[in-house]
Amino acid sequence: MTPGTEIQVHRYSAARVGPDDFRLVETEIPDPAPGQVLVRNTWTSVDPGLRLRLRAEAPAGYFVSFPLDRSMDGILTVGEVIASAADGFEVGDTVWHSLGWRSHAVVDAGAEAMNGVGNLRVLDVGRFPAQWYLGPLGAMGLTAYAGLSVAGALGGGERVWVSAAAGAVGTLATQIALKLGHEVVASAGSEEKVGWLSGLGATAFNHHHQPPAEALAQVAPDGIDVYFDNVGGDHLEAALEAMRMFGRIALCGSVSEYESAPSGPRNLFLATAKHLTLTGFRGSLHLDLLEEMQCRLGGWLLDGSLSYPETVYEGLAQAPQALADMLAGRTTGKTLVRL
Amino acid sequence: MTPGTEIQVHRYSAARVGPDDFRLVETEIPDPAPGQVLVRNTWTSVDPGLRLRLRAEAPAGYFVSFPLDRSMDGILTVGEVIASAADGFEVGDTVWHSLGWRSHAVVDAGAEAMNGVGNLRVLDVGRFPAQWYLGPLGAMGLTAYAGLSVAGALGGGERVWVSAAAGAVGTLATQIALKLGHEVVASAGSEEKVGWLSGLGATAFNHHHQPPAEALAQVAPDGIDVYFDNVGGDHLEAALEAMRMFGRIALCGSVSEYESAPSGPRNLFLATAKHLTLTGFRGSLHLDLLEEMQCRLGGWLLDGSLSYPETVYEGLAQAPQALADMLAGRTTGKTLVRL
Repeated sequence: MTPGTEIQVHRYSAARVGPDDFRLVETEIPDPAPGQVLVRNTWTSVDPGLRLRLRAEAPAGYFVSFPLDRSMDGILTVGEVIASAADGFEVGDTVWHSLGWRSHAVVDAGAEAMNGVGNLRVLDVGRFPAQWYLGPLGAMGLTAYAGLSVAGALGGGERVWVSAAAGAVGTLATQIALKLGHEVVASAGSEEKVGWLSGLGATAFNHHHQPPAEALAQVAPDGIDVYFDNVGGDHLEAALEAMRMFGRIALCGSVSEYESAPSGPRNLFLATAKHLTLTGFRGSLHLDLLEEMQCRLGGWLLDGSLSYPETVYEGLAQAPQALADMLAGRTTGKTLVRL
Repeated sequence: MTPGTEIQVHRYSAARVGPDDFRLVETEIPDPAPGQVLVRNTWTSVDPGLRLRLRAEAPAGYFVSFPLDRSMDGILTVGEVIASAADGFEVGDTVWHSLGWRSHAVVDAGAEAMNGVGNLRVLDVGRFPAQWYLGPLGAMGLTAYAGLSVAGALGGGERVWVSAAAGAVGTLATQIALKLGHEVVASAGSEEKVGWLSGLGATAFNHHHQPPAEALAQVAPDGIDVYFDNVGGDHLEAALEAMRMFGRIALCGSVSEYESAPSGPRNLFLATAKHLTLTGFRGSLHLDLLEEMQCRLGGWLLDGSLSYPETVYEGLAQAPQALADMLAGRTTGKTLVRL
């Protein structure tokens, strides 16, 4: 037995989630049984999609709800193996797995987690900092890369709009699209973020200063070909308005609607009028692209041509505050908790 | 000069369109100039999409608004050439073109109309009744066929839901999907229509008796793969709910929202959760499929295995009433006016 701590959901909040909706709980971690490893977690992930699981019913087809007063399973996490009873895993290995928001985890080496993205896996930390596997070399990179791929935008030469472009996925989608030869319009919610995005080479605007429809009419008066949607709501409506014929929309997330009643795009008929395709997707369903993505993004990270901002919170107790800050737009790039 | 008549839009109605929104006007038809033909129209088309053009501003990318107190251009029509000054067109030829809702039209043989679908074209009326070219062998057939094609449902073996399935496009989409080996759920707004659809082999329900979400949960408890949307609104929300993973939605029309403020599907996030693709399309953008479609549907019509109901109004003056009746769900199959 090892003493540990974990975060549990105390109640489901109907409005903005906050630290009071969680509890930090002391636990006792059993020794690993055959086929298991004991991991001391070192980094854990904070993602917008977690908000959708902080309800009695998560959207059908999505990851399941977090139960009340129990461990939160299905959150990507990095850690170090401190005891192993599974072939292929040694004490000292750095791994990723899906039992985050806790200090220690006993992980079943053969278990399938989160469509395979969350399966226990040894990481190459000789080349890359471990926490990058929670960002550009992990689910965030996969989501950005797959999103551009499913949107049919990997060929280059089109105009792509990325919303929440200073977020964990948005920073990557913006830069991947630029590298692949697209013209990128990037939106975010602060002047600081907009300045950073402009520095990358995107045409950036602040959606708190100007409604997206108005901003797009100015910066892209002849329209956009691809929209990478992280926001939903008025952003998605603005995109439908601005799309050129045969445009494509990658529906990655709709963070503007996670803490309120979603309204739906009132101008969806424009999809019929302009022959648009909207494709919902999750990075975890494109595990086949993981190696290709890691190879390309890893190279760009090592040569310094891909920027990867992080907002880091110290200590497991800060995870709920990190989530609340991220949902409110107060973090930049990947939001992480260091344990 | 030939004396003629035409329907003109008198005013744009904010609510339900009716005969008072139009005027029947006497006209003088000029003789055809070189490159033109004079056509006496015999059948003219009544389509839900016309409603979207009875506004000051039609949806961007769609066909333009009908101007007030002028000819209504861009409505598919069949007629007989009564004078020709254009190569390739002889007096007595039956043709289609896009200058409908009028008794006669002078048509420029070289003009591009309605993405090419409306170009002047000689019809093979030895094999088929002329008005079928306004239905299964024309834009309706193309829309149904292309819709199943863009939705990726032409392979067969899936469960397809077709809404407004007793309408001009719906009757064809339903039967094409059945012929291609799909299981078809079909919805319509009367017991008579539901009975007819059941007779074809579809699992049919009446959306006036039961909300679509509830009906789908009963008749397709394990979900649908493809939704052919002619209705929008609560039908589209029900489809998003019922879709299986990797499902596809063909956005053909949303007739429930043409005469009111559209609301948009509030559960669009399910597209992300379930990796759904929504593709808007118009038959007129798939002119490349016209010959293939005519060949297949023409064969099925001749061998009697494809049913094609029509609701026919007599005389040009009835066209506005026909449109109002069709939008209110009082017609079955293709709505036509015989001149």
